[in-house]
Amino acid sequence: MNSNKITVLGAGSWGTALSLLLHEKGHKVNLWMKDEDQFQNICSTRENPKYLPGIAIPNNLKLFTDIEEAVTGSELIVLTIPSQAIRGVIQNTKKFLSSNQVIINAAKGLEQNSLMRISEVVKEELPQNPFAALSGPSHAEEVCKNMPTTLAVASEKRDIAELVQDVFITKSFRVYTNPDLIGVELGGALKNVIAFGAGISDGLGFGDNAKAALMTRGIREIARLGSQMGANLATFAGLTGIGDLIVTCTSMHSRNRRAGILIGEGNTIEETLKKIGMVVEGVSTTKAAYKLSIKHGIEMPITKEIYKVIYEGSNAREAVTNLMSRDRTHEMEEIVEDANLNW
Amino acid sequence: MNSNKITVLGAGSWGTALSLLLHEKGHKVNLWMKDEDQFQNICSTRENPKYLPGIAIPNNLKLFTDIEEAVTGSELIVLTIPSQAIRGVIQNTKKFLSSNQVIINAAKGLEQNSLMRISEVVKEELPQNPFAALSGPSHAEEVCKNMPTTLAVASEKRDIAELVQDVFITKSFRVYTNPDLIGVELGGALKNVIAFGAGISDGLGFGDNAKAALMTRGIREIARLGSQMGANLATFAGLTGIGDLIVTCTSMHSRNRRAGILIGEGNTIEETLKKIGMVVEGVSTTKAAYKLSIKHGIEMPITKEIYKVIYEGSNAREAVTNLMSRDRTHEMEEIVEDANLNW
Repeated sequence: MNSNKITVLGAGSWGTALSLLLHEKGHKVNLWMKDEDQFQNICSTRENPKYLPGIAIPNNLKLFTDIEEAVTGSELIVLTIPSQAIRGVIQNTKKFLSSNQVIINAAKGLEQNSLMRISEVVKEELPQNPFAALSGPSHAEEVCKNMPTTLAVASEKRDIAELVQDVFITKSFRVYTNPDLIGVELGGALKNVIAFGAGISDGLGFGDNAKAALMTRGIREIARLGSQMGANLATFAGLTGIGDLIVTCTSMHSRNRRAGILIGEGNTIEETLKKIGMVVEGVSTTKAAYKLSIKHGIEMPITKEIYKVIYEGSNAREAVTNLMSRDRTHEMEEIVEDANLNW
Repeated sequence: MNSNKITVLGAGSWGTALSLLLHEKGHKVNLWMKDEDQFQNICSTRENPKYLPGIAIPNNLKLFTDIEEAVTGSELIVLTIPSQAIRGVIQNTKKFLSSNQVIINAAKGLEQNSLMRISEVVKEELPQNPFAALSGPSHAEEVCKNMPTTLAVASEKRDIAELVQDVFITKSFRVYTNPDLIGVELGGALKNVIAFGAGISDGLGFGDNAKAALMTRGIREIARLGSQMGANLATFAGLTGIGDLIVTCTSMHSRNRRAGILIGEGNTIEETLKKIGMVVEGVSTTKAAYKLSIKHGIEMPITKEIYKVIYEGSNAREAVTNLMSRDRTHEMEEIVEDANLNW
């Protein structure tokens, strides 16, 4: 097996977990973080107590706050920073980067103001660099314990996707290639909106039947938008679509779901974000998704209700009740209408 | 609203829950059960302690063990008996039935020896009677508490599907029509095989990432078989496909999942069925699904592994490990191969 020099930007739970995985696989790994306090804390304890408590960080996994030192000489750069911070970090770093370094995004979001996918942001800032997106049902807490996990890597270039596959794959961390970059990016980002809604449903005590209905309709509206934006419908039935939606909506590891639960239990959005204490990607993604649905003329009832709860102070119980008990009595299943099945 | 005379055959948790729902809606409901002890127990306690403890059964919901009395004069007959028992019950009852009584199957399975869907069994025994299948993510325990629930009703005849929709729909129990009877029946039956596998994964302590991967691939192999058997692919992305799969694989209400958990924890299949103490549809469905996959030449790796665990004494840990960590290094996502996406 080849050993690569790899830099991971961002030392949240996912960045830390991926660094450990790559390091255990024999790569030379640099882990960069912005925060000096966090850096000193990890250096002295050799673990990441805020994001991944109890997991040892070996001494030869190198830690940095100086981004020039962190990226220089690496063949691959892995992004695990919050989506809204990616452009700024790249702008500050591009003078230290060369055009053959492969950029791999492992964050799941959209740029809120531009409505861009992360690949588009990176392409605007680093038009020459090869790019891939890594996504799928993969809670960091389980990856650290070598629990079986599957992901997809997508790139416009097959050789880049296969390179990233080779770099990351282990016996328990299975990486599959997928040519549909748009679908992989949209699935990973937009499922956080539905997870927020699933959390609200749970927080309201609505049960498993209701949540399953919400998830079924959720992936449907994601796929409708994605298809309009150029993604392949099949991708939403795969690991980065329904697979990631399932894990995010049903696991307590998901902070998007936990944020929704807090809202469902009666907290305001401000109280909720304060209690979570980390970036909740679903909040900014909900705004971006709502704007995209308007821009592309796609009906996204769940996204719209979640948007109203987060940004317009709508009542969460009314929102979910509206979604679950629409007043039409002769309702065909949505999927049937979309597929134009005939009787 | 019209009031109908309806007979529910089978007083398990689902039969009891549907009887209560229909009764609360103002229909005249007869609930039939075979077991004399159960009958006397329900009559004296006015609840169903084995299957639905703590839920009151009103006095004017009529209970029967005599099937002639139970079905005579009813406009609709709802089947909630185990799939393997349906043909026998119908054969014993057909002399009391008239051809305009609507048969609604709400059980989820396949006839093990004939590999028939329940609609085919009913058609063979009662070729004149209108038929519909009611299916979707709907744990009985939540339906009894009026928690929001969505289902689909499928029939070859649109007017029958819409009649059943009208009969069952309430503010919290939303029923949608779907013309794809084959897809609705197969989704409801086959998801129990995957739920069994998801339970095994949970019982082995494999985590949320692994289970999400198993579910994603599970609905895929169900859809592959279903498509070959004449179902519409879209149905598997709907309430009776992925929706029901989600609720069954993630809820402790599912006895198929619980059976899988017991297997994963090291129990034999005999010990497991003894501990569950009720019919586990997934056991017979696994055999039928495995035979169908051979008959139709469709690769169903999860079904095959579960079949080997249940019927050939395969080791459960090896089975799930095989499914999660296949040895190919250049793996494309299965969905991509099936959809023939190009790079």
